Amino acid sequence: MPLDPVEPTAIEAMFWVNNIWMLIATFMVFLMHLGFAALESGMTQAKNTVNILFKNLSILSIGLLTYAFVGFNLMYPGESFAGGWFGFSGFGISTDASGLGISYADGAYTYWTDFIFQAMFAATAATIVSGAVAERVRLSSFLVFSTLYVAVIYPMVGMWHWGGGWLAASGFHDFAGSTIVHSVGGWAALVGAIVLGPRLGAYYGGRIQGHNLPLAAIGVLLLWFGWYGFNGGSVLSADPAAVSLVVVNTSMAAATGVMIAGLGSWIFAGKPDLSMALNGALAGLVGITAGADVLTPMAAVVIGGISGVLIIAADGALSRMHVDDPVGAIPVHLVCGVWGTLAVGIFSPQVSLATQLMGVAVIGVFCVLGSAIIFKALDATLGMRVSEEEELVGLDIEEHGVGAYGGMRLVTEEIPVAAK
Amino acid sequence: MPLDPVEPTAIEAMFWVNNIWMLIATFMVFLMHLGFAALESGMTQAKNTVNILFKNLSILSIGLLTYAFVGFNLMYPGESFAGGWFGFSGFGISTDASGLGISYADGAYTYWTDFIFQAMFAATAATIVSGAVAERVRLSSFLVFSTLYVAVIYPMVGMWHWGGGWLAASGFHDFAGSTIVHSVGGWAALVGAIVLGPRLGAYYGGRIQGHNLPLAAIGVLLLWFGWYGFNGGSVLSADPAAVSLVVVNTSMAAATGVMIAGLGSWIFAGKPDLSMALNGALAGLVGITAGADVLTPMAAVVIGGISGVLIIAADGALSRMHVDDPVGAIPVHLVCGVWGTLAVGIFSPQVSLATQLMGVAVIGVFCVLGSAIIFKALDATLGMRVSEEEELVGLDIEEHGVGAYGGMRLVTEEIPVAAK
Amino acid sequence: MPLDPVEPTAIEAMFWVNNIWMLIATFMVFLMHLGFAALESGMTQAKNTVNILFKNLSILSIGLLTYAFVGFNLMYPGESFAGGWFGFSGFGISTDASGLGISYADGAYTYWTDFIFQAMFAATAATIVSGAVAERVRLSSFLVFSTLYVAVIYPMVGMWHWGGGWLAASGFHDFAGSTIVHSVGGWAALVGAIVLGPRLGAYYGGRIQGHNLPLAAIGVLLLWFGWYGFNGGSVLSADPAAVSLVVVNTSMAAATGVMIAGLGSWIFAGKPDLSMALNGALAGLVGITAGADVLTPMAAVVIGGISGVLIIAADGALSRMHVDDPVGAIPVHLVCGVWGTLAVGIFSPQVSLATQLMGVAVIGVFCVLGSAIIFKALDATLGMRVSEEEELVGLDIEEHGVGAYGGMRLVTEEIPVAAK
Repeated sequence: MPLDPVEPTAIEAMFWVNNIWMLIATFMVFLMHLGFAALESGMTQAKNTVNILFKNLSILSIGLLTYAFVGFNLMYPGESFAGGWFGFSGFGISTDASGLGISYADGAYTYWTDFIFQAMFAATAATIVSGAVAERVRLSSFLVFSTLYVAVIYPMVGMWHWGGGWLAASGFHDFAGSTIVHSVGGWAALVGAIVLGPRLGAYYGGRIQGHNLPLAAIGVLLLWFGWYGFNGGSVLSADPAAVSLVVVNTSMAAATGVMIAGLGSWIFAGKPDLSMALNGALAGLVGITAGADVLTPMAAVVIGGISGVLIIAADGALSRMHVDDPVGAIPVHLVCGVWGTLAVGIFSPQVSLATQLMGVAVIGVFCVLGSAIIFKALDATLGMRVSEEEELVGLDIEEHGVGAYGGMRLVTEEIPVAAK
Repeated sequence: MPLDPVEPTAIEAMFWVNNIWMLIATFMVFLMHLGFAALESGMTQAKNTVNILFKNLSILSIGLLTYAFVGFNLMYPGESFAGGWFGFSGFGISTDASGLGISYADGAYTYWTDFIFQAMFAATAATIVSGAVAERVRLSSFLVFSTLYVAVIYPMVGMWHWGGGWLAASGFHDFAGSTIVHSVGGWAALVGAIVLGPRLGAYYGGRIQGHNLPLAAIGVLLLWFGWYGFNGGSVLSADPAAVSLVVVNTSMAAATGVMIAGLGSWIFAGKPDLSMALNGALAGLVGITAGADVLTPMAAVVIGGISGVLIIAADGALSRMHVDDPVGAIPVHLVCGVWGTLAVGIFSPQVSLATQLMGVAVIGVFCVLGSAIIFKALDATLGMRVSEEEELVGLDIEEHGVGAYGGMRLVTEEIPVAAK
Repeated sequence: MPLDPVEPTAIEAMFWVNNIWMLIATFMVFLMHLGFAALESGMTQAKNTVNILFKNLSILSIGLLTYAFVGFNLMYPGESFAGGWFGFSGFGISTDASGLGISYADGAYTYWTDFIFQAMFAATAATIVSGAVAERVRLSSFLVFSTLYVAVIYPMVGMWHWGGGWLAASGFHDFAGSTIVHSVGGWAALVGAIVLGPRLGAYYGGRIQGHNLPLAAIGVLLLWFGWYGFNGGSVLSADPAAVSLVVVNTSMAAATGVMIAGLGSWIFAGKPDLSMALNGALAGLVGITAGADVLTPMAAVVIGGISGVLIIAADGALSRMHVDDPVGAIPVHLVCGVWGTLAVGIFSPQVSLATQLMGVAVIGVFCVLGSAIIFKALDATLGMRVSEEEELVGLDIEEHGVGAYGGMRLVTEEIPVAAK
């Protein structure tokens, strides 16, 4: 029965279009997980590919399940306590039918849509960390870290702003999560990369190259595609003016990020650097995420361009400090996440730069402390880093017993042929 | 002219949103064909990749064309005969304009949308078989098989339930096709794998590994993405409550499938097995497909988890019986298709387990007989299996004259340089 | 606030669904750029992959930015001069809020949506050229060419038809751009391939094979997926009858293109040729693009089938003439673009074949002249072709200093191990 038995109203028709758009946006954010998996495995060495794919597939699944079990109710508790710093409305998701009607979110989406859109966001925060610790982190320890980070840290921070907590009350503006999602992942990426230390040989004779750049390019372009759902869905309705502005801003920032990072590497390093151009797209996307709803496309161009410059600078600085981040997660998600959030305070007259700074700083301190405690506790117990032998041979053979590019097994005549 | 010349009503607005959602769901199901192609080529040996890609691209095309020519009218004949066991409303698709208005499906979609959504489903049933017979099936024979299976067998079974036949009258519940699509493909996969026998050397010294696991991961995540259209579109409208519940259930089952199959392989085989985790996602997806519209997310978690256990068990059993299924199509699509269908009878009070069992069994017998007759007839005439030499060298070079990863042709100074 | 404060009308609900569909179609056209990048890099040699990815990522970005700066206002100037041959409404995109309401396009989409949908189209025209000149074109020169072609040539031609210029007044019919997009790219591809000359060794001992056919297959299937947005979005609303007919026609033409090109290569060359089957899909898609709105699915089958024949013939003819087109861009986009445009005149009684021919010819002359002038000017100044050494070694190492499939750097005990 596609239509209500009674004559539908235009409000009901709008409910249907809003909700289906939010679900489609959810599917697009889902596809970002394929993007992250492809980017991370393409940007790293072939010997660790199975490990990375297993890790990212697991994080997605852990993210969805823990968000159902505890995250959603930590992030959107209804009522919060302790001055808007904490709230929790119980374990598990509701099956109360009242969340399915037009009254749940003023005709924008159902309870189920709300949950699954937010769950896909939650899973991205943990995935961001994954790239920075790749090729040397112990799988079991990282999965425990991810579980805690996505189940507790991310939803708590999310509640402060999107869940109606103290940060929402402060006038802080972070439309789709330059800070709430990307820097939350980025801070833990920084902490993780420092705690683990660099990969063996990372600073010996030039950068370790990615083993499959087409795979990395697939990853980045799928991330860009998915970002239209990430930012466009953050309008929380299909409002034509709002969504179309967000989409234009998102496109402009990404395109400028590519050009500036690509040209920048060409000018400063003498060669057009594909990895930098790819990360330039992501830098622009992270940069515009905080203000895509309130800025003009011209501001998006400026923000995306500065994001492109920032990742070149940050990448160089991290290299000099020997903070080894195989995929560039820290420049992209942390540096541009912070920049994008501050940029709203700079380019939008309604938003206070001081408030933006305050929000960035408080969340930074919380995430650094939270991730450092978890990483250090795991390091002291399970151990965060694989053995030297495992790292040299590769995690695929050592942890998984299989390579990513096997299958060329030689079948010769000596093999007893199966009876047909 | 975007709007009707007369003042549109809310029913018309709903017609537009329903129809566009059904088309978008169609596009997502289309993308599942890329998912199947990537999964199957990634999970097999490099020497058969061109063959697999050619096969899957052809099946998609054959599926769309035969469904237009005969399948749609076999599956949705309007009236059926022989007690709801058979019907046919003629060759080709209609170009009658009456299918384009709001009256065609009560404002849910047009005739064209109906056809193309169903056509994409049809093509998936044949593609499922492809994975189980990979690396040793003769291309021409398999394309003849696919043509017959997708043109006749699949639509006949589909008619019994979705086309208003005897199974629909029995109270059988299969929302989006755990049985009607996945087990229909899965039974033929089982028959095909048995008729062909195992690959040369399949049980000699460990499993033959896939040659490109990132490609397999791309495949699985695109399949998961496409499944949101497969299950979400099976609501047959954009009804917010119905579609959003289906999407949440689909997500929960897939995520649990990943975790249980991944952890299960870790515990039982000592190593976290990426292939198993990937197939765990598909297992959960197939498992929830029959009941995603009527079950709770908690039931979806249980169904997805059991699906994860079942593929580990089924994979072991098939190995012991030397039924060689290179991609795990039989555990995923047949075993979890049956399980998902029965699970609706277990978890939903409105659905009879006995009726579910009866439907599964009758369709199983029909598909086994149908596919066995076609496979055996082709084996006796064209031959189903390639020669030993072709299999050893690889189908790419032998049947297609080209490798999948060529292109590194050495160009040296001896080559006469073309005039510029 | 998802809903208007006042009671929304059904017209407003339709505005929301139309606009969100146009944005989703935009995202799908965006994904075609990933399709082009994957197809082009998969169909060429491994040593030029980084170069191709950098090139395609840059073209996408340049296309979006130049379209904002100048292209959109060249293509849709409002008023045109010189008898509908030229118009320009100023640099940059408007931020006037009047473009965001229901009055902008009769409730079909906002100004921002209009811009970004058209911008994605613009970027495809330049990308088409990229494949034909791959593996030997100088990166910097090609980026300058692309910038000029996408910023000036494409929008001028687009204005003639879609911008309300002289061609629109003539009764020319090109629904989604067989001529306006595909042949505009295709003519420049032809000119570029001739100006550059063939790759070193291109006609020495068999065709140069693509290095990664799974990547090419990913590319083609993503292009097919994106084409549903390209053609479906060209309805410029979510009109159920119109969009669903377009989607069915698009599917039928693509599927027939695959079958005819695949079977044709099998019959004529003795081997089922995957590259030909893949290009058959694109051939059918380009062929149906001009008339998908006015033709029947049976006509789509005929057009797609003839497209499949045409690329085999055109590919052979180009080979004999030593016009080296590594990915088959000229057969697909130029030959089938012309054929598809003429086919509307043949199959649709309302469209004049003579007018179609005239439009094809005038645009052909303009694009050949335009692209030849730019290519020749660049060849005389920057140089269009890389040196022989660069071509032999590969553009990746020579121009970018990195290979696409590195990353297997050997890390041995001699390397000073970083302190953990």
